[in-house]
Amino acid sequence: MLSKTIVKYIQSLAHKKFRQQENAFIAEGSKVVTDLLVSENFACKIICANRTWISENRGLTEKFPLDSVIEITGPQLKKISLLSSPGEVFAVFEKNETHIIPEKQISIMLDEIRDPGNLGTIIRIADWFGVKNIICSEDCVDCYNPKVVQATMGSLGRVNILYTNLDDFLRNHIISMYAATLGGKNIHEFGKIREGIILIGNESKGIKEKLLATSAGRITIPGRGKAESLNAAVACGIILSHVV
Amino acid sequence: MLSKTIVKYIQSLAHKKFRQQENAFIAEGSKVVTDLLVSENFACKIICANRTWISENRGLTEKFPLDSVIEITGPQLKKISLLSSPGEVFAVFEKNETHIIPEKQISIMLDEIRDPGNLGTIIRIADWFGVKNIICSEDCVDCYNPKVVQATMGSLGRVNILYTNLDDFLRNHIISMYAATLGGKNIHEFGKIREGIILIGNESKGIKEKLLATSAGRITIPGRGKAESLNAAVACGIILSHVV
Repeated sequence: MLSKTIVKYIQSLAHKKFRQQENAFIAEGSKVVTDLLVSENFACKIICANRTWISENRGLTEKFPLDSVIEITGPQLKKISLLSSPGEVFAVFEKNETHIIPEKQISIMLDEIRDPGNLGTIIRIADWFGVKNIICSEDCVDCYNPKVVQATMGSLGRVNILYTNLDDFLRNHIISMYAATLGGKNIHEFGKIREGIILIGNESKGIKEKLLATSAGRITIPGRGKAESLNAAVACGIILSHVV
Repeated sequence: MLSKTIVKYIQSLAHKKFRQQENAFIAEGSKVVTDLLVSENFACKIICANRTWISENRGLTEKFPLDSVIEITGPQLKKISLLSSPGEVFAVFEKNETHIIPEKQISIMLDEIRDPGNLGTIIRIADWFGVKNIICSEDCVDCYNPKVVQATMGSLGRVNILYTNLDDFLRNHIISMYAATLGGKNIHEFGKIREGIILIGNESKGIKEKLLATSAGRITIPGRGKAESLNAAVACGIILSHVV
């Protein structure tokens, strides 16, 4: 049964403070929830779903204790959902501690990405290109923010995300970093890379000067029009499509 | 002075029905409004801005009649703004009739793009790569939707956007169309093109079968991970970066 306590608990997880306190986050919709369950990267604490979803996904939920799978009605789903068109299922997962070893592979580093849609899209892009690691500055938007979780379309369960001080991280790893910025080397002249970090900066301010100074190279996507810049997630996708 | 009538008029333009009726749309923030004014693609009807913005942008506004430039206070801006952090300026522009000649250049065609952020980002991408034309199916989100206008970051003034029946449009133009889809030719093996239409499909359903059948070629962005697809705007950006 969906008690008032559970509703209150679920609603609190829309806020970062409570996600930190409870070490948990929410996910909605069959695609996202199913992908997170299958990935087994996050322990699932509660599933609220309609009867159809529960009966169609017995294989995924039978390992959970009976009281953590709650059958709810459409209006109840609407009540707890943050989406304008709620799906069939809503779940609470435990957050996960991530350790990242960037050597011998390509990773993405994000300097102050603020927009939840952008971070979610970048996680989805990383998953598409088989990039396993995303290293986020501490002032990036929380990857457990519900809008980020939705925008990942389930990719959150397949990518490791670490929040850390980027300068400290770079001091502790011997690895080349390539910054996405204007005035660098044309992406078409940039060869494929097997190892390294692709650095993407803030939506309006770009990459912090100190961080930019540490980069081994600068990559530029040549434009012919008059737009001042590309969206951060689009730039990330374009660069990965050329260098991976 | 910001009369109640003007406030009501401005607020009505958040809705498509009234934008159609009034043939007008709203834009916010100095970057977007300035770019639209400079582009001269859209006649400006009203500018509401704080004293600083008006005095710093006299060159852009002096051609307007005195009563169409309204000095307003921060709280008044907040009242009419649709943004969580309102900028210094808010404007109403007249919509523009577009005619598109797709021959001898690259154009983008959108089949039922529904998300305002995606359409806005695609307009910004087109502008970045110097693509002048976007042909939208009639069921695409309205490009004058305030969320689309904001996401274009001013590029709306530099790209021609036409809403039309895509099948009819293609019947009337002899031009090759390349569809962004799974299972097509690897983008890395696809050469540069000088003329043609890049077709991007709906966020969840992809491209309509009938339309797909008309395409001269299919382009695929190879992935190595487990994500089912890329975001529509990201796919559009990656394809343009390879073929333009």
